[in-house]
Amino acid sequence: MRFELEAECPDTGARAGRIHTAHGVIETPVFMPVGTHASVKGVMQRDLEMELDAHVILANTYHLFLRPGHELIRQLGGLHRFMSWPRAILTDSGGFQVFSLSHLRKISEEGVLFRSHLDGDSHLFTPESTVEVQLALGSDILMPLDECLEYPASHEGADRAMRRTVRWAVSAYRYFERRLEETGSVAALFPIVQGSMFADLRRDCASELLQLNAAGYAIGGLSVGEPRSLSLEMTEVTTPLLPRDRPRYVMGVGMPEELPEYVARGVDMMDCVLPSRNARNGCLFTSAGRVIIKQARYKDDGAPLDPNCGCITCRTYSRAYLRHLFQAGEMLFSTLATIHNLKYYLDMMRQMRQAILLGRFRAYLDNVRNSAVESS
Amino acid sequence: MRFELEAECPDTGARAGRIHTAHGVIETPVFMPVGTHASVKGVMQRDLEMELDAHVILANTYHLFLRPGHELIRQLGGLHRFMSWPRAILTDSGGFQVFSLSHLRKISEEGVLFRSHLDGDSHLFTPESTVEVQLALGSDILMPLDECLEYPASHEGADRAMRRTVRWAVSAYRYFERRLEETGSVAALFPIVQGSMFADLRRDCASELLQLNAAGYAIGGLSVGEPRSLSLEMTEVTTPLLPRDRPRYVMGVGMPEELPEYVARGVDMMDCVLPSRNARNGCLFTSAGRVIIKQARYKDDGAPLDPNCGCITCRTYSRAYLRHLFQAGEMLFSTLATIHNLKYYLDMMRQMRQAILLGRFRAYLDNVRNSAVESS
Repeated sequence: MRFELEAECPDTGARAGRIHTAHGVIETPVFMPVGTHASVKGVMQRDLEMELDAHVILANTYHLFLRPGHELIRQLGGLHRFMSWPRAILTDSGGFQVFSLSHLRKISEEGVLFRSHLDGDSHLFTPESTVEVQLALGSDILMPLDECLEYPASHEGADRAMRRTVRWAVSAYRYFERRLEETGSVAALFPIVQGSMFADLRRDCASELLQLNAAGYAIGGLSVGEPRSLSLEMTEVTTPLLPRDRPRYVMGVGMPEELPEYVARGVDMMDCVLPSRNARNGCLFTSAGRVIIKQARYKDDGAPLDPNCGCITCRTYSRAYLRHLFQAGEMLFSTLATIHNLKYYLDMMRQMRQAILLGRFRAYLDNVRNSAVESS
Repeated sequence: MRFELEAECPDTGARAGRIHTAHGVIETPVFMPVGTHASVKGVMQRDLEMELDAHVILANTYHLFLRPGHELIRQLGGLHRFMSWPRAILTDSGGFQVFSLSHLRKISEEGVLFRSHLDGDSHLFTPESTVEVQLALGSDILMPLDECLEYPASHEGADRAMRRTVRWAVSAYRYFERRLEETGSVAALFPIVQGSMFADLRRDCASELLQLNAAGYAIGGLSVGEPRSLSLEMTEVTTPLLPRDRPRYVMGVGMPEELPEYVARGVDMMDCVLPSRNARNGCLFTSAGRVIIKQARYKDDGAPLDPNCGCITCRTYSRAYLRHLFQAGEMLFSTLATIHNLKYYLDMMRQMRQAILLGRFRAYLDNVRNSAVESS
C-alpha cells in the first residue's frame, strides 16, 4: 500500500492524495460507506461501484467473525470475492463492537473476552487473533484491536486504556508483519491513536505509535457521545503529529457539515453509518438542507429530492413517490434513500478533493461555514 | 389497445401474441410482476426494465386508493409518471383486496362498503368508482369490480355472485366507455369471468360478458384455496368460450410448474405474488428445482444460485453469500432473490413464447411434465 500526496491546502491542513491498494486506487479525502455484514444495507455492489463510484467500503470484523465466520470467508476466497466487491475494503478490529454490542466483556492484557450478541457464545479477541480474522477476510486496510472508552472517561482510566491500546497495537503490528511475510499478501495495518478527550494522552499515544512506522494511522475513540467541538479538538491535536506522507483516518465520523472540518484538520479518510442509517429513517441530506420525507409537505411534491443531485434517485423519482414508499414501508425506499445520502456524502468529498487540488479549499470551507451559520 | 395473434400451437391451446398498449408492446404469453404499492418490493424500476425486461406490471387499486390516493396520483400525472415506470400497467379492481383484507364489508347492488385495513375509514367501491380510480391511475388495462368468493362456495351463492359480477361488469364497462370518449385516453377494460368451481356458471358468465365485446377477458376467482386440478379445469372450461383474437388473463396464478399448464389452455397473461413473496422468504426457483437458501448445505457453496440463469444475482453472487445475507436479515437479500425469482418466471414465459412461435410448444410441455413427474 502506497500513499501519494497530491496537494496540500496552504491555509488549512487539508490534503488530497491517492492510496494505491491491491484493489484499486482510493482518491482522498474519502468517505467510506459502511457495509456491516458484507453489504451496504439495501445497496447492490453494482450501484456502489457504478452509481456511487465508491472507492472503498468498510466492513465490520466483529459481525463477520460471528456470522458467517472469517474461516468460511477465507475458504470462499476472501471478502472481496464473497461479496463480489472488486474495490478496496477496510475492516475495523472489532473492538468498537465488542465494547458497544457484546455482553459480559472481560478485558485483560491478553485481549477481550466477550459473549456474542447473537447467541451468547464466548469468544476471545486478542491483538493477534483480530489481525488473523482480518487477514482471512482479505482486507486491504486492517485495524488493530484497541480499547474504546465511553465519554466521559477519567484521565486515569483513559491513560490506562491508551497504554493498553499501544501495547496491543505493537503486538498486532508484529503479528501482521510476520503473517504478511509468510503469505506474501499486500495490505496495511493502521494503528489507532486513543486517549479519550485528553490532548496529552493523544500526543503520547501518537508518539508511541509512530515508532511502528505504519503505512497509515487512525484516530479512534471519537463519536462516543462527546461534544462536536471536542472531537474536532482531539483531531486537531493529533493530525499534526502524524506523518505527512501517510493517510490519516478518523473513525466513525461524521455529520455532513463536519466532513469539511475534519478535512481542514488534515484527515484523509472517514466512515460513518449516519448517511445510510438516516436514509432508512427518512432523513435525507440535500443541497438545500435536510428533508424529513414523511412530512406532509412532500405529499404532492413532484420535484426531485435534490435538483442539484445526479443520483439515480434524484434523476428518476419525485419527493411525493419517495414519501409514498416511506409511508407504505416499502423496501425500495431504503435503497433509493441510501443511494442518495451516500451520493451526497461522496460528492461532497469529491468536491473537497477538487477544491484542494485547485487550491480553493479555503474558499470552499468559508462558504460551507457561512451557509451553516445562515441556516442555523 | 390491439391484440395481434402471432401463432397458435396446433396441439394445445397455447398462443403467442403481442398486445399493443399506449406504453409499449406486451409480448404474450406474459407474466406480470406484482407492484402492490406502486413498487415491486425491493426492485428498482430500472432493474424491472433493464435486468428483467418486464413488459407489464400489475398494481393494486385497493392499496393505491387508500394510500397515497388516486387523486394524488392523477394530480402528479398518473401512475406511470408517479412510479417512473414507462411500460404498461395493469390494475386490478380492488375487489379481491376488499374481500381479503378489509373489514366489515357490506355488499349491495350498488357496490361494496368496506373499512380500510389501515385506519378503519369507511369507503364505498362501486363499479363506476373503481373504474374512475383506475382511470386516475392511468392504467393501460383496467379490471371491473367483481365479487370474489372463497372456496368452497355453494352453487347458489356462486350463481348469485356471478350474476352480480356480470351486472357490475356491464355498469363498469358503460362508465369506462363514456369516460374514454370524454377524455380521449387509450386503455382497455377486461371483464372478469367468475362462477367459482362450477363449469355451468363459468359458461353462463362468459357468454354474458362476451356481449360487451371487450378488448380482452379475465378469469377470476381462482387461487382461492381450491385444488390445482380444479383451477385448471375451470380455465379449460372458460378459455374456448373467449374470443380467439383477444387476450386472456388468469388472475393470481401460479406456481412455476403451473404456468405451462395455463398457457397450454390458451391463457396469455398471468400474475402472482408467489415469485416475489417466496423470494423474500428464501425460497428460490432454479432450473434444478427449489432452493431453500437457509439450509446449511448452502453455507459454503460458492456456486451461483442457478448456473443456467443470467440474472444479476446469478451472474454476481454465490449461494453462500445469498445465504449469509438471508441469515443476517440483510435487505439486499430480498432484492437479489426477487430479481432472480422474477427472472426465472419471465424467462420461462419467454421460452414458452419462443416454443409456440417455433411450433415446438407440445414438446416443451411434455418435457416440463416429464421433469415434474421425475422430480416428484
